[in-house]
Amino acid sequence: MTPDTHADGELTRQLDRTHVFHSWSAQAGLDPFVIAGGLGSEVWDFDGQTFLDFASQLVNVNIGHGHPTVVAAIQEQAALLATVAPANGNLARGRAAQAIVAHAPAGMNKVFFTNGGADANENAIRLARLHTGRDKILSTYRSYHGNTGSAIVATGDWRRVPNEYARGHVHFFGPYLYRSEFWATSPEQETERALRHLERILQSEGPESVAAILLETVVGTAGVLVPPPGYLPGVRALADRYGIMLILDEVMAGFGRTGAWFAFDHFDVRPDLITFAKGVNSGYVPVGGVVLSDEIAATFDHRVFPGGLTYSGHPLAMASIVAALGAMESEGIVANAARIGTEVLAPGLAALADRHPLIGEVRGLGVFWALELVVDRGTREPVPAAVMGRLKGELMARHLLPFLAENRIHVVPPCVVTDDEVARALAIYDEALTVVEASL
Amino acid sequence: MTPDTHADGELTRQLDRTHVFHSWSAQAGLDPFVIAGGLGSEVWDFDGQTFLDFASQLVNVNIGHGHPTVVAAIQEQAALLATVAPANGNLARGRAAQAIVAHAPAGMNKVFFTNGGADANENAIRLARLHTGRDKILSTYRSYHGNTGSAIVATGDWRRVPNEYARGHVHFFGPYLYRSEFWATSPEQETERALRHLERILQSEGPESVAAILLETVVGTAGVLVPPPGYLPGVRALADRYGIMLILDEVMAGFGRTGAWFAFDHFDVRPDLITFAKGVNSGYVPVGGVVLSDEIAATFDHRVFPGGLTYSGHPLAMASIVAALGAMESEGIVANAARIGTEVLAPGLAALADRHPLIGEVRGLGVFWALELVVDRGTREPVPAAVMGRLKGELMARHLLPFLAENRIHVVPPCVVTDDEVARALAIYDEALTVVEASL
Repeated sequence: MTPDTHADGELTRQLDRTHVFHSWSAQAGLDPFVIAGGLGSEVWDFDGQTFLDFASQLVNVNIGHGHPTVVAAIQEQAALLATVAPANGNLARGRAAQAIVAHAPAGMNKVFFTNGGADANENAIRLARLHTGRDKILSTYRSYHGNTGSAIVATGDWRRVPNEYARGHVHFFGPYLYRSEFWATSPEQETERALRHLERILQSEGPESVAAILLETVVGTAGVLVPPPGYLPGVRALADRYGIMLILDEVMAGFGRTGAWFAFDHFDVRPDLITFAKGVNSGYVPVGGVVLSDEIAATFDHRVFPGGLTYSGHPLAMASIVAALGAMESEGIVANAARIGTEVLAPGLAALADRHPLIGEVRGLGVFWALELVVDRGTREPVPAAVMGRLKGELMARHLLPFLAENRIHVVPPCVVTDDEVARALAIYDEALTVVEASL
Repeated sequence: MTPDTHADGELTRQLDRTHVFHSWSAQAGLDPFVIAGGLGSEVWDFDGQTFLDFASQLVNVNIGHGHPTVVAAIQEQAALLATVAPANGNLARGRAAQAIVAHAPAGMNKVFFTNGGADANENAIRLARLHTGRDKILSTYRSYHGNTGSAIVATGDWRRVPNEYARGHVHFFGPYLYRSEFWATSPEQETERALRHLERILQSEGPESVAAILLETVVGTAGVLVPPPGYLPGVRALADRYGIMLILDEVMAGFGRTGAWFAFDHFDVRPDLITFAKGVNSGYVPVGGVVLSDEIAATFDHRVFPGGLTYSGHPLAMASIVAALGAMESEGIVANAARIGTEVLAPGLAALADRHPLIGEVRGLGVFWALELVVDRGTREPVPAAVMGRLKGELMARHLLPFLAENRIHVVPPCVVTDDEVARALAIYDEALTVVEASL
């Protein structure tokens, strides 16, 4: 980490505004925060100012920035062999697949590697369609599954709407007690009614036409929605009744984020296909993938799987997975996320909500939390965008990189976050909320 | 490059067969060739056997294996900062975009980065649809544009057929004189008739419903089809007449493969959107992207671009692009590909065709060639799959990694290939064809 200069920061900004087209944005007037380097839960800019990264970038840097074991593994693999075609065998690829399935349920032994979460979901959808011989994919309105053709139409939230060019996608409502679509007043009632709603959708669509139900185990960007007790086992039972595949999207929730290796470990449910990306190697090299049940894998023993990509099982990505999962295990990083969640974030965020009427609900687990901000706790009306903009400014001014979505603060630090860093972050959220509340 | 052991090769095979699900294959009975390392145009296995890589893996390792400048850039960036969210600024990203647009036509100044070629085409399609407000995408039957939702339906060849779940895609025939769809007997006639066919498709679909024409500048896996003189300017004129965007897919053809920075540099045509991947960094880190015309970029100055991905502009990928393009320039690698094409491969492959009646046509440019194998030069009937299987065995036995597609050998070495390596490869093709012909 050499100290860099103010001029590099200016050059970064200038080149960015001239040549870089950004995701999910209008391009005029963008002024991106420039990151020069990072370590653990902190990043710094070219002026040497450090920031707490309570966004984990895009909720992917689970192992923290600059983890030496992962960096070294990438460096070694780059020197050994950066790239091979997917048809050729590679030792790092076999080891990465083995390391992943070690955390999967029994009966899930094969991995198809992709470049990210979107094409992981694309391929899970493809596998489910070909395995079942059926067309339709059910997913929830509050969801995000990626930005490519089928993945973006599987996505339920607003990001789908300008992109609807794929067929066979049906959306339904998942459980979300704070804003229940089912007039429910308790978690038990929300579960029961959400399952009844899903079954009615299935019956109305014709269950024999449905290939898969695709769900984020814990809904991520669309709200950190932890499923209420019994919901996922209920979905599994419905899928079994109708011969439908259950795809659990663990792209954001997997590999430590919830304080477990897979988020579904909390919920007594077994998927047929698991999709992953982000946390599997903390995004140090672009990668994603699908873990297949043995039944689905066997469908393609003697039948060509009609999907693939140049960088499937890319050695650099594979080496980073082996190193990241090894370090997470040996350093107790998943256990740390669980402990931080239960002992530090849960009480800390609850105390924050006690002090700030703007916070309508606190929910989450592990290092995966949302504070839902409302104008009025009674009506639960979301705060307007201007309030979120002001909040962002106050948080950045106090050197915390936040993750903000709609009317929510997502509190999503790396899984390696320390008690002290959480304490500092809680103090910053507290101050920023105080300032914003005073201005209303 | 440390010498590795036979046991590592066995372990690779065993882990692969147990845990790795492969692209475009039936999984039972796969026995992948295992690569332990590589340098330049050669790779080696765990038993120390070296092979000429005349596939460039998946036609991506343009700069050759183990290029020290690119390896060092990856290692340095990994230590500095492996990953940032796309919304944050990063110096390597601005530099990579600048290095790419330096080779693009005037008036194309912005780059949107993706994870590979498929999502580059996904996003080019999205940009064209939103910019024009139209729905349909025209592409050719002989094409491959990637494996995600829209990209695979834009694809024309057999890989589309089991995956047709996206709407708005229309396919037409491109020029291919050796197997003309238009009963043409000269390149001039093929051009004229292919353009007439395209215009009739446009008129029949309703040109005001067409957002883009998507073409591989030189069709890759579907045949190394070099467009005849006048075809691409003719397509450009049709696109202009009807207000249609022209997307040129340079994923395989770009960055040196044809002996030019972009393949369209050969053909006097200016695209509205360029998609790239593979050669831009030789696949050392997964990456792809779209170069936008200023007109299309301006559409999103004040309007949200509804697409994005976690690893857009990933620092590790960006550093590898800057290093790879810099090395290609300073080492004259694109010029080498051009010279090898004109002076060595063109006469060498023509001589091969003189000696082997199995070769029906030789076509290509730069280090991008196809030998089309036929049972009979008169009928042009393709050789059966069994012949291609035998040929593969004979080539591998002589330590050449071939790229075979349908009834064709694609001769696609790295752009750094030497005269001596081409001479060795030509001798191997010669021997293998002799053996296979003798067995018929």
